[in-house]
Order: sequence, then C-alpha cells, then structure tokens
Amino acid sequence: MPYDPVDDPTPDPDSSLRERLWRIIFLSDTRAGRAFDIVLLILIAASVVVVMLESVSEFREQHGRLLFVLEWSFTIVFTAEYLVRLWVVRRRLRYATSFFGIVDLLSILPTYLELFLTGSGYIMIIRVLRLLRMFRVLKMAHHLGQANVLLNALLASRGKISVFLFSLLSIVCIEGTLMYLIEGGQPDSGFTSIPQAVYWGIVTITTVGYGDVTPVTVAGKMLASVMMLTGFAILAVPTGIVTAELHRELEATRLDRRRCRECGHVGHEPAARYCKMCGVDLPE
Amino acid sequence: MPYDPVDDPTPDPDSSLRERLWRIIFLSDTRAGRAFDIVLLILIAASVVVVMLESVSEFREQHGRLLFVLEWSFTIVFTAEYLVRLWVVRRRLRYATSFFGIVDLLSILPTYLELFLTGSGYIMIIRVLRLLRMFRVLKMAHHLGQANVLLNALLASRGKISVFLFSLLSIVCIEGTLMYLIEGGQPDSGFTSIPQAVYWGIVTITTVGYGDVTPVTVAGKMLASVMMLTGFAILAVPTGIVTAELHRELEATRLDRRRCRECGHVGHEPAARYCKMCGVDLPE
Amino acid sequence: MPYDPVDDPTPDPDSSLRERLWRIIFLSDTRAGRAFDIVLLILIAASVVVVMLESVSEFREQHGRLLFVLEWSFTIVFTAEYLVRLWVVRRRLRYATSFFGIVDLLSILPTYLELFLTGSGYIMIIRVLRLLRMFRVLKMAHHLGQANVLLNALLASRGKISVFLFSLLSIVCIEGTLMYLIEGGQPDSGFTSIPQAVYWGIVTITTVGYGDVTPVTVAGKMLASVMMLTGFAILAVPTGIVTAELHRELEATRLDRRRCRECGHVGHEPAARYCKMCGVDLPE
Amino acid sequence: MPYDPVDDPTPDPDSSLRERLWRIIFLSDTRAGRAFDIVLLILIAASVVVVMLESVSEFREQHGRLLFVLEWSFTIVFTAEYLVRLWVVRRRLRYATSFFGIVDLLSILPTYLELFLTGSGYIMIIRVLRLLRMFRVLKMAHHLGQANVLLNALLASRGKISVFLFSLLSIVCIEGTLMYLIEGGQPDSGFTSIPQAVYWGIVTITTVGYGDVTPVTVAGKMLASVMMLTGFAILAVPTGIVTAELHRELEATRLDRRRCRECGHVGHEPAARYCKMCGVDLPE
Repeated sequence: MPYDPVDDPTPDPDSSLRERLWRIIFLSDTRAGRAFDIVLLILIAASVVVVMLESVSEFREQHGRLLFVLEWSFTIVFTAEYLVRLWVVRRRLRYATSFFGIVDLLSILPTYLELFLTGSGYIMIIRVLRLLRMFRVLKMAHHLGQANVLLNALLASRGKISVFLFSLLSIVCIEGTLMYLIEGGQPDSGFTSIPQAVYWGIVTITTVGYGDVTPVTVAGKMLASVMMLTGFAILAVPTGIVTAELHRELEATRLDRRRCRECGHVGHEPAARYCKMCGVDLPE
Repeated sequence: MPYDPVDDPTPDPDSSLRERLWRIIFLSDTRAGRAFDIVLLILIAASVVVVMLESVSEFREQHGRLLFVLEWSFTIVFTAEYLVRLWVVRRRLRYATSFFGIVDLLSILPTYLELFLTGSGYIMIIRVLRLLRMFRVLKMAHHLGQANVLLNALLASRGKISVFLFSLLSIVCIEGTLMYLIEGGQPDSGFTSIPQAVYWGIVTITTVGYGDVTPVTVAGKMLASVMMLTGFAILAVPTGIVTAELHRELEATRLDRRRCRECGHVGHEPAARYCKMCGVDLPE
Repeated sequence: MPYDPVDDPTPDPDSSLRERLWRIIFLSDTRAGRAFDIVLLILIAASVVVVMLESVSEFREQHGRLLFVLEWSFTIVFTAEYLVRLWVVRRRLRYATSFFGIVDLLSILPTYLELFLTGSGYIMIIRVLRLLRMFRVLKMAHHLGQANVLLNALLASRGKISVFLFSLLSIVCIEGTLMYLIEGGQPDSGFTSIPQAVYWGIVTITTVGYGDVTPVTVAGKMLASVMMLTGFAILAVPTGIVTAELHRELEATRLDRRRCRECGHVGHEPAARYCKMCGVDLPE
Repeated sequence: MPYDPVDDPTPDPDSSLRERLWRIIFLSDTRAGRAFDIVLLILIAASVVVVMLESVSEFREQHGRLLFVLEWSFTIVFTAEYLVRLWVVRRRLRYATSFFGIVDLLSILPTYLELFLTGSGYIMIIRVLRLLRMFRVLKMAHHLGQANVLLNALLASRGKISVFLFSLLSIVCIEGTLMYLIEGGQPDSGFTSIPQAVYWGIVTITTVGYGDVTPVTVAGKMLASVMMLTGFAILAVPTGIVTAELHRELEATRLDRRRCRECGHVGHEPAARYCKMCGVDLPE
C-alpha cells in the first residue's frame, strides 16, 4: 500500500509542532525540509559505507571499535527518526505498511537483532533503498516522471518478457543437457552435472561469459558456437520489446492535452481538428 | 501439424466419460480442468528436477534408490496420461504428430529405452518443453497473444537475421584465420588451429568473452581490438532488426484501414467514431 | 566496379556454347544453372573445410596426403571455372575487377603461390566469401533485398557510428592511462603498459571481458566499475543508431508505389489522395 | 565557455599577419588552413603514440633517448602553437577557458611539470582529445551535425538513464551483499567483502564477466543465474531509452509544422508543395 504524503490530511491544527515536523520530514518544499532531506541522505549513504567496510576483514580488525560506535550511532538516529515519523504521520498503519515504511523499519532492526543473532547485521544493506528518496529531493517531480515512463514501459512488456525468459530457460535446459552429454565424460571437465551445465548455459546466453566452465571438445565448441550465434540473435528480443514499448509510451506523452468540449475526450493527435469521438471541432 | 483442442469436435455424446476427460485434459475452462493442469505442471517440474539431480554424482550415490523410484513413478504417471490423451482425443493422428504430441511421447520413451541402452535417460530433459503448456493455464489467451507478437516479429526478420548471421560467420572465418597466422606460432598459444581461432572469433564477436583463448602478441591484440570495436557496431544490427519489426508489429495491431468518405483520411484509431480531420462520422 | 549479369548483353549469337555456358554460370533461372550453382556451393564449402582442417596439426599429420590431393583438386576445378567465367563473360575487365571477380581470383592464387612461399596457403580462407553467392541461389531477389535494407541502414548511420567509435576510443585511451597509473605499480599486474591498458579498456567497454587483465587494487576496481556502468549506458548508442535508421528504412519500403500521372513523383503515403508535389489526384 | 571561431570578429585590419594566421589556424576553408590542420593532426597522433610507447618498459629501455627527444620536440612545437593561438585570437580569455583552450594547455604542461615531478608525464595522454578537432577538417559541418544528434539524444535521456543507473546500483548492492553472505564463508572464495561482491555484481550485470570472481556454491550459482537473467531483461532499458530518443530526434528533423488551409492536415514532408489530402497548395 503506497503512502503518499500529499494524500495525507494535514495533522491536527492544535499540535503545531507535530504539523511542522510532518512538513519537514515528509515534504521538501520548505528550507528546513530540504535541509532535513539532505542531511538524512548523507547519513544514509555514510551508514551504507560503514556496513560495507565492516565486511572488509583488514578494516574490521583495525577500526572495529570505530565501526561499532558508528553503526550504533546511525541506528539510534534512524530509530529516533522512525519513531518521529510514526508520531507525526496521521495514517500510521498506511505509512508503516508502505514500501518506504517497511524499508525504514528493516533498516534499523538488524542492529538490534545482532545482539542475539550474529551475522544478521548485513541485512542493513537494505538501507541503500532509502536512498531512493533522493529523487524526491533533486527535482522530484521531473525524475519521478522519468521513472514512471520506464516503469510503465517495463510493466507493459512484462507479459512478453516473461514469455521470453521462460522460453529461454527451456532452451538453456535442453542445450545444457546436450553439453553435459558431450562434455561430461572429459577429465577435468567443468560440466560435472546438468545443473552445472545449465548454469554454464545461462552464463553463455546472457553473454556474461565468466570462463569458469568452458567446452574443451570439438563437438562441445561447435554446439557452444551455435548457441552463442543463435542466442545472440534471440537476445535482441528483450531490447526490442522494451524499445517498442518505450517508444509507444513516449509517443503517448506527446498526445494532445486538448479536451473535447462536448464529450470530454482527451488524447487527440496534434494534427486533429475534430474530436474523433463525437465529431465536434476541437479548440486550438 | 498443430493440434488445436478448439478445432476438435466434441467426442461422441454416448461416451460421456471420454468427453468429460477430454474437457478436463485439453481445456482448462472448468474447475477440474484447471486442477488437472496445475497438478500436471507440478509433476512435470518435479520430474525435470529429478532428471537434473540424477546427473549430480554425489546426489546419485546417496539417494540413487529414491531417484530411481521417483523416475519410474513419473514415467508411469506420464505414460498413463499419454494413453488417456490418445484415447479421449478424436483426431488421434493429428494429436500424435502435433508438437505437444511428440513432446509427450519423447518425455516417456527414454526411461523405457534405458532398460536396454544406458545413458539415454537424459533425453528426458525434453520434458521441460511440456512446461510450455503453462501459458495455457495462466491467462492463456493473453500470454499466447504476446508470444505471437514475438514470434511474428522474429519470423518477419528471419530473412534479415540469416543474411546477418551468414555475413558474420564469413567475417569471423577470415578474421579467425588472420589471428591463427599471427598468434599460431607463439608458445602456449590458444590459437592451435583455424577452427579453434574461429571459435575464439565467435566467443569474441558475440561479446561472451570466456577468456580461455586470448591473444598474447601485440599484433594479435590490435586485430582483436579492431574486431571488438567494429563487431560491436555491427552487433547492433540484430537488435535493430527485431526492434523495427516489433515496432511495426505493435503498430499494426493499432492500425485502422477505414477511409473517411469526406476527406479520405486513413489512419484512424480503432476507437474513433468521427474523422479527426473533417468531423464526419466514420464507417463501421 | 560491380558486375551485374543482368546488365551484361547476351554474348554473340554465333557462339551458342559460350552463350549457354554464360547463362548456366551467371544466372540460376534454368535447371542447369541451378544445378551448377548448388554443386559449386558444395565444392566451395568443402574446400573451406579442407583449408581449416589443414591447420589442425593432428589431422595434418595423419591425413596430410589426402588434404594435399583435395586441395589441388579444388584449386584445379576453381581455376578452370575462373577461366571459363572469363571466357564466357562479355565485359571481361568489368567482371575481373568486380568484387566477386577479385574474390574468385584470390581463391585460387594462394595454392600456386605456396609452391614458392610456404604459409601463404591460408589466404585461401577468402574462399568463404564465394559462399555469399549462395543468396543468389536461394530466393535470390528476396534475400538480397534484405541485405540491401541492412546495408543501407548501416551506410546511413556510418557517419554517426564513426563519430561514436572515435569518441569511444578517446575515452578508452584516457581511462586506460588512468588505470595504468593506478594499477601499473602492482606486482603481477596485467597493466604493464598504456597500450596494454587501452586493450583492457576495449575488452571491458565492449563487454567482452576476457579476464586476462583485471584490476586488483580497490581504486582500480572502482574506476573499472564506473567505466563499466557509464560505458554500459553509452553502448546503447550504436544500437539506437542502427535501430532508428533501420526503422526509417523499413518505413520507406512501405511508401506507396503510385506514380503521379502529372509530375511522376513516386513515394506517396498510403493515405495520400493528392500528389504532394503538383496537387493532382492520385490513382487508386 | 565555448569558443567559436565564427563568432570571433576578424582581427585588426592593420595586423595582416595576425589576421592571416588566425584564418589558417582556426578555420580550414583555405588551402593553407587545411594543410595546417592535417599536419597538426599528424603531429598530435604521433605524440600520443610516443606517450604510449614511453610506458612500454622494453621500448623505453632501448629507445629512451629517442623518445625523450621526440617528446620535447612535440612539446616545444605545441607550446609555440599555443602561444600563437593566444596571440592571433581576439577574445583571449574566451579561448583560454574554452574546452579546446584548456585541452591545448593541459597537453603541454605535463612535460614541463615532469622536470620537477616524476610520473606526471602520462597526463599528456589528454592530447588524444585534441584529435577531436579532426571532425572539423573532414567534412566538418556534416559530422558535427551527426554528433549533435547523438549528443541531443543522450542529453534528452540523461534523466531516465541516471534514474536507471541509480536503481541498478541499489539492486547490485543488495544482491552483492546476499552473494557475500552465501559465498563469503567458502575457502578460496573471491567474495572476500561486500565491496568486492558489489564489484562482482557490476561485472556480472553489465555482462562484462571477467571471471576473476565467480560463485562456487550451488546457492550462489542459482542467485547469480537469477541475477543474470533478470538483469538481462532490465539491461534492455538503456538501449530502449536511447533508441526511442534518437528516433524522436531523427523524426523531428523530418517534421513539418505547416497546416493545410483547406482541410487542416498537419504532418507534410518538407518537400511537399501540395496537401496530400485535399490537393490545395501549401503555405511556404
């Protein structure tokens, strides 16, 4: 359930502190709101860096104490922020169950969890998702519009892409099995089992090509070549899908904003002079 | 020859069991038909996993007996299903020679074959193709429509793509030979023969890049660089082909052939009722 | 200078053998002409395979004598064919200097050259280009039309692609130098010199990624990551160029074939009713 | 601040030498100007090659003296050229702070700097940017127009591409952390820390695939496969963005805003003189 601050009614007029905090935290149309957002983004970025550095063993051994202190400082600040958010917001459940509400919670829980459960701390990397708030700060509306066009194009091609991916997987399974039959018997072969061969097939057909498993027999190399070349031609498909959808999406944003004064239809072509729905002439 | 259940006339009204079975097995418009399809898909997926696990040597050694029992259970169930399909269907030859009819047969034969011929069992991986029936279960019509658009776009660009692939192969043969002449003499060179060099060329030009064969001389690296960069520009071609065809295909589904009887304008949207140019009503 | 058999006037009527041979060799509209083309294509394919096998050392040692005999047989047949072509054709110079004329000559010369100059034999791989004649045999006109659309799209985007490739090379040179400064000092580093680093840059930015040279320092990995991600976004450019041109090219082939009876203009849109050049009404 | 020679007023008429030099150096519309440009481009290319060769240790040891002399010769020539440019140009500050003005300065400074600071010499590779002047010499206007279309398409998709890259980075961070948790404990694992795993994620999702870090556990390979396949579908996005923008850009250069005064049709080709819908003549 999305939580949109604009939908949220202004908090009670009597609690003016709460109202002001809400405006600062959830919107960025005031000077204080902007400052809050920027400070928050810097803190989040810093905390993500700390989580990453904690995993580097040399760094952890040398600066373990510092990282520990930083980690707890960030967690305490973010916990306070989360509680304040919960307090100032009106539709509490809606915020708590929204995408950012859940991400906010998941960003602080792991540190507390680690008191009981070692190793759970890395889940904090989920904090990186909080950085997506950035788009709200930097020219929000414009960039979110861009994201919408992208998302719409991806959603519109969802059906085609899932058909494509499933067909691809079927082909990779069959070709992987063939490669296992051809290459499996070789000494030191990387094709030790069908799942391994399917993994190789995915690495090959997506043109990643690690090279940790490669064919060594002549027949294997020939089959791999055929797979790469045909795979190569097939792989143009998802690009074609997204491009065609994106093109259609971009075209749609160019359609006219003129509204027919008779039937109210919107979405006329720029060249149109008469409403295609009811036939009356359109305004210039 | 495709077998389309909708074309098949309803079986004899006297054999009501056969008719009911036919409806359950081949269509998924009833509750029982849906349940049958879902159970079947789960069984197929499970049997594919079993075939894959059988190839993992540690797993086969530990759970060989279990896999053996599972494999035979699946085969017996699928054999029964195939026989029932053959019984209930009216145009038997048509079903047996259709794509899914052949796949259904090939999915059970290998287990019996393996009684006489060791190693033939892995052909069972072909069962994965039976999963393509999935699209019939999950919002069939819609997804198959998507697949049709994709297939049409690929078929329409078949000519261009084969011209492209053949030209690519010619270039790769010539460049592979050049690389063999340049790199072949090096000690420990991977370019041991022209076919090997052509294999390298395909790995390189499709941007897979395993790294099992790489140039070591300066001249070889320069030729490889030229090949990657020009190849890179050429490789945009199949994507361009599929995208342009897909775009045309998508446009065609929006096209309208109606001509305005007043101004003669063609190219109205399917939803339009009046000519957008002169305002008179369009023919149905 | 292209040699087009259709432009070539029929040879002298008195030398009917020459005329018949010309028709058989250069056209494929008769039964004999078709048979000749197919036999020739098989011979060419076989001779390409022989050249490739000759480079496989085990094969050469075992079947060296056989390959030698085959190679000379093919060369003698192709030499005879070349001489006959020269004889039957009318515009001899035009054929000899055309693309296929030069390829035909280069396909036989190397065998003779090798009598004096060891190692020159592999140039025979150029025979693979003779296979391009294939498109004339299999539905010639249609496939060549496809090739023309591709070629036109590539030629139309030539300017944009060369600007793109040159800018890419400049970026790769600068980033390669940076990588050399960062990684060059490491022991066992692959970045032994700037040209080597530029080679790495090309391998990386074209997403080939052999892995024979990879960054090992933290700074190097960060720069490489930035390079891959931005490079990734930039690399969409050639695809975009070719797609847009191809789309335009395909659109152009849909333009009307109607010729204005007044000014003779061709290339009206299907919806057009009046000539856009002189205003008279177009035929249906 | 761009410096455009065409905007620059002709220098004082009394200093005719300065005026003539300005025309030779900044324009290429005279025979001398063309010759100057070509000689300069050759010198720049040669000096870039010298900088590159200097980094090859064997070459530097053998021909160190020659390279030293060449390097200083080029620097002195380029210094003279820079001073002359500064002298003949009228808007000196504008030239000095323009893109090419800064590149010209950075191309000569490093040699002098190296007298005091060893290792700074490789910054001279920036000279490669001076080669971009090439486009002015070879059919300048046309190629720059091509570059403009490309640049406009890239700029127009800037917003969408940055949204895309940032989302990609978030996904890679989270998937990298997951891979670290799965693979990190393995002996000899390449996933030694989260930053390392994120580096692997970028190498994988851009389909570069070096193979210096690869998953070894079954779970790791499964996650990597999911990442490659979904990543593969997502990666079609930047191509789609650039293609759609480029297509729009190319269309825009063909657009015509003229409206027929009779039927109101908009969207005539620039060459059209009469409305294709009703046959009346179009306004200029």
